[in-house]
Amino acid sequence: MPDPESFHMSPEEFRRQGHAVVDWIADYCSRVESFPVLSRVQPGEIRAQLPQHPPQQGESFDRIFADVERIILPGITHWQSPNFFAYFPTSTSGPAILGDLLSTGLGVQGMLWSTSPACTELETHVLDWLVPMLGLPDKLLSSSSGGGVIQDAASSASLCALLAARERATQFASNRKGCDGRLIAYISTQTHSSVEKAVKIAGLGSDNLRAIEVDQNFAMRPDTLARQVEADEKAGLVPCFVCATVGTTSSNAIDPVREIGGICREHNLWLHVDSAMSGTAALCPEFRFLHDGMEFADSYCFNPHKWMLTNFDCDCFYVADRKHLIRTLSVLPEYLRNQATESGAVIDYRDWQVPLGRRFRSLKLWFVIRYYGIEGLQRHVREHVRLAQQFAAWVREDARFELAAPVPLNLVCFRLRSGDAENQKLMDQLNHSGDLYLTHTRLDGKMTLRLCVGQTHTEARHVERAWQRIQQATAQLGQS
Amino acid sequence: MPDPESFHMSPEEFRRQGHAVVDWIADYCSRVESFPVLSRVQPGEIRAQLPQHPPQQGESFDRIFADVERIILPGITHWQSPNFFAYFPTSTSGPAILGDLLSTGLGVQGMLWSTSPACTELETHVLDWLVPMLGLPDKLLSSSSGGGVIQDAASSASLCALLAARERATQFASNRKGCDGRLIAYISTQTHSSVEKAVKIAGLGSDNLRAIEVDQNFAMRPDTLARQVEADEKAGLVPCFVCATVGTTSSNAIDPVREIGGICREHNLWLHVDSAMSGTAALCPEFRFLHDGMEFADSYCFNPHKWMLTNFDCDCFYVADRKHLIRTLSVLPEYLRNQATESGAVIDYRDWQVPLGRRFRSLKLWFVIRYYGIEGLQRHVREHVRLAQQFAAWVREDARFELAAPVPLNLVCFRLRSGDAENQKLMDQLNHSGDLYLTHTRLDGKMTLRLCVGQTHTEARHVERAWQRIQQATAQLGQS
Repeated sequence: MPDPESFHMSPEEFRRQGHAVVDWIADYCSRVESFPVLSRVQPGEIRAQLPQHPPQQGESFDRIFADVERIILPGITHWQSPNFFAYFPTSTSGPAILGDLLSTGLGVQGMLWSTSPACTELETHVLDWLVPMLGLPDKLLSSSSGGGVIQDAASSASLCALLAARERATQFASNRKGCDGRLIAYISTQTHSSVEKAVKIAGLGSDNLRAIEVDQNFAMRPDTLARQVEADEKAGLVPCFVCATVGTTSSNAIDPVREIGGICREHNLWLHVDSAMSGTAALCPEFRFLHDGMEFADSYCFNPHKWMLTNFDCDCFYVADRKHLIRTLSVLPEYLRNQATESGAVIDYRDWQVPLGRRFRSLKLWFVIRYYGIEGLQRHVREHVRLAQQFAAWVREDARFELAAPVPLNLVCFRLRSGDAENQKLMDQLNHSGDLYLTHTRLDGKMTLRLCVGQTHTEARHVERAWQRIQQATAQLGQS
Repeated sequence: MPDPESFHMSPEEFRRQGHAVVDWIADYCSRVESFPVLSRVQPGEIRAQLPQHPPQQGESFDRIFADVERIILPGITHWQSPNFFAYFPTSTSGPAILGDLLSTGLGVQGMLWSTSPACTELETHVLDWLVPMLGLPDKLLSSSSGGGVIQDAASSASLCALLAARERATQFASNRKGCDGRLIAYISTQTHSSVEKAVKIAGLGSDNLRAIEVDQNFAMRPDTLARQVEADEKAGLVPCFVCATVGTTSSNAIDPVREIGGICREHNLWLHVDSAMSGTAALCPEFRFLHDGMEFADSYCFNPHKWMLTNFDCDCFYVADRKHLIRTLSVLPEYLRNQATESGAVIDYRDWQVPLGRRFRSLKLWFVIRYYGIEGLQRHVREHVRLAQQFAAWVREDARFELAAPVPLNLVCFRLRSGDAENQKLMDQLNHSGDLYLTHTRLDGKMTLRLCVGQTHTEARHVERAWQRIQQATAQLGQS
């Protein structure tokens, strides 16, 4: 008989080591500003420190955990540093980490209602909470024809939206006969790359993806969209899906959802609204204009894991009519049949997503909404927008720089007027310094720096120092 | 200026509350056997206890956490109970929980090498470790043409395999022109439903999926496969993809990979081997026959989150030639460009999966392999196989029962000889008792009970008691 004490980690050891890991994370948060934000290791440097072969016998947890500090930490780019201004952030927070820990400890699979009813019902409930919190239309509520589900990422939400759109457009023929190569999807030139990826995955083919031109603010031009849809219809193709973005990744541009929605309704196109980063701002009434026209949307997503203090992965995906989604994703083999499913009285979220298995992800979202309350979350958003607007004002006042796009919220796109090479040098110098981390995009054909204020602990002092460092580094480039 | 102390959880509070959550999990593990394994709540019962509106002001963590015990726990089906014998398990363990906690605390995005080099390099390294650990062919190593990546679930692995197969079969035409409705995929009648779902998602169409008949052991018949492939070729269709399963969900049947592989090679079909549950057994040399013929595989997956003590989500997915996978899934917009990617010297795992974002999931796998060592993991597998074989022997000796399928490893498919209604009654009575949880399938047209020994803390006493309870309940049905 094996002795379980000598084999698995005992509850006592788990308690002791768990406290140590919690303490390490608390300390990490306290000292995160002392690390270079962007990791300085070279390719292969981490692997070179790992033993070639796995251990034959088990090792003590103390020994394993010591290697985190020694080997892993230098290879971390610190997304949780308040000096992280790159990409869009992946925010976390104390209550989110603890909610996720609880999910891990409970270790349930929420694929079916019956495999842990609380996992499904809390998710439905919290996603219903968010509908009025964000000023979204009632049709997205689970009590209407729609409903929400947590996906891992906005990429997966886009894919599910496209699959539901394909289902509706082909009246389920896609499942029986395959794609016929005539379904057309529409994005703007600024839409996130994940939608192009979804179009490839779903087998529509890149030739059937239309990237509509944008206006001077990098927002999709509805007139061009309408003309393209009509041309495609005339050519015998089947326009099927439009993705409008509220807050593009490149520049935070806001597509005109209401006008796009009118076109979609006229031509019976599925409208998906991707608000992955910016949706969180709609928690504040003054930013709810973001969701103007949302009554036209067939699906919608935003990512609490970006700006709403809930660690990855947590994308909230809504549909206005769940039947198309479920029809395209549901396959029910015998070994998953159960009374609750057959009764039709429950949601089985496996039919709302690509994978079968799913974690209890709503726990962290529930913890965050309750710990901060609506007012705490609003305060968080407002402060970040205020800081980004302050930064944009500094850029505007400095003749060496220009703003490259409007700044509706918390992302500032800016550049030196002196050209791509100088901007590249500036960015490299800043990122190599370790003091802050920002990334770039290309707008109007020009290299453009992006500074996004969205990390949980970013305060005024961090944004002020970022601007000081940018000015210093610019001076070192010989510009004064 | 906001005062961060009054707004976010302070490091001190995180430490205190984190210890409390760790203690709760340790206690949960100690008392998990005291709960009914299958939750007894009715649909809507959990939601009815949740307030209709989210809180305006934040609440204390103590208050939030108290609701876990009060509201959530009764709605949990206890996957971490040693009396959980249903479906396939989702194992976890102390080191895995702590590795995942660390991943949550670090909060990095591993989408690109540069966004946290350690996240990518540890994943590559640990997945390379597993290749010889499981007796898999060298071509799956990252140092050859292939490599491994962690997916959330085997469903996603199947989808990625199918997409790579589609890419290879169409020489990238699928991305340009869409599916042409002529690509054919092959599974057996026993293949997991996720492959049918993948075929729908990828737009091949269900009409282009062939479910090949199985032999008396529920394994795919290679002769039938060969005939079907030839018929499809003659009909001008394009056979493209075969999924062979090593350990089906329904009955743990093992498809003859070597023979299927020969057919795939002859007809240039992509062979994906799904070993989600059973792959872990190949840690033991005596079970490595499972991977016989794996040199024919183009892709392979197994789930450490099923039987290798690593909590969900952790599916290890390998390809023999990574270029097809990357070509079908890579889209590189300007805002993701960086020097390391352009150098070609690094892996960017976003190109190996559907979503863009990704957690640092290899930490938990690294912790598990090191904490248990190869010998500890082997001991775990051997004990579960021994217990399942013991259970199968008891079934065999009881004239009221029959085994419904061979028992190669740790899943026992059995039934009362007295018919479906009696088996349904037996299962319902056992599951409603709360003493254990098992689920069913249908084999040879008959309702069949499945008992899988795979939960981390399942020991001899649990399996013995399960058999006693089954005998008792059978007697209560009036059978003696």
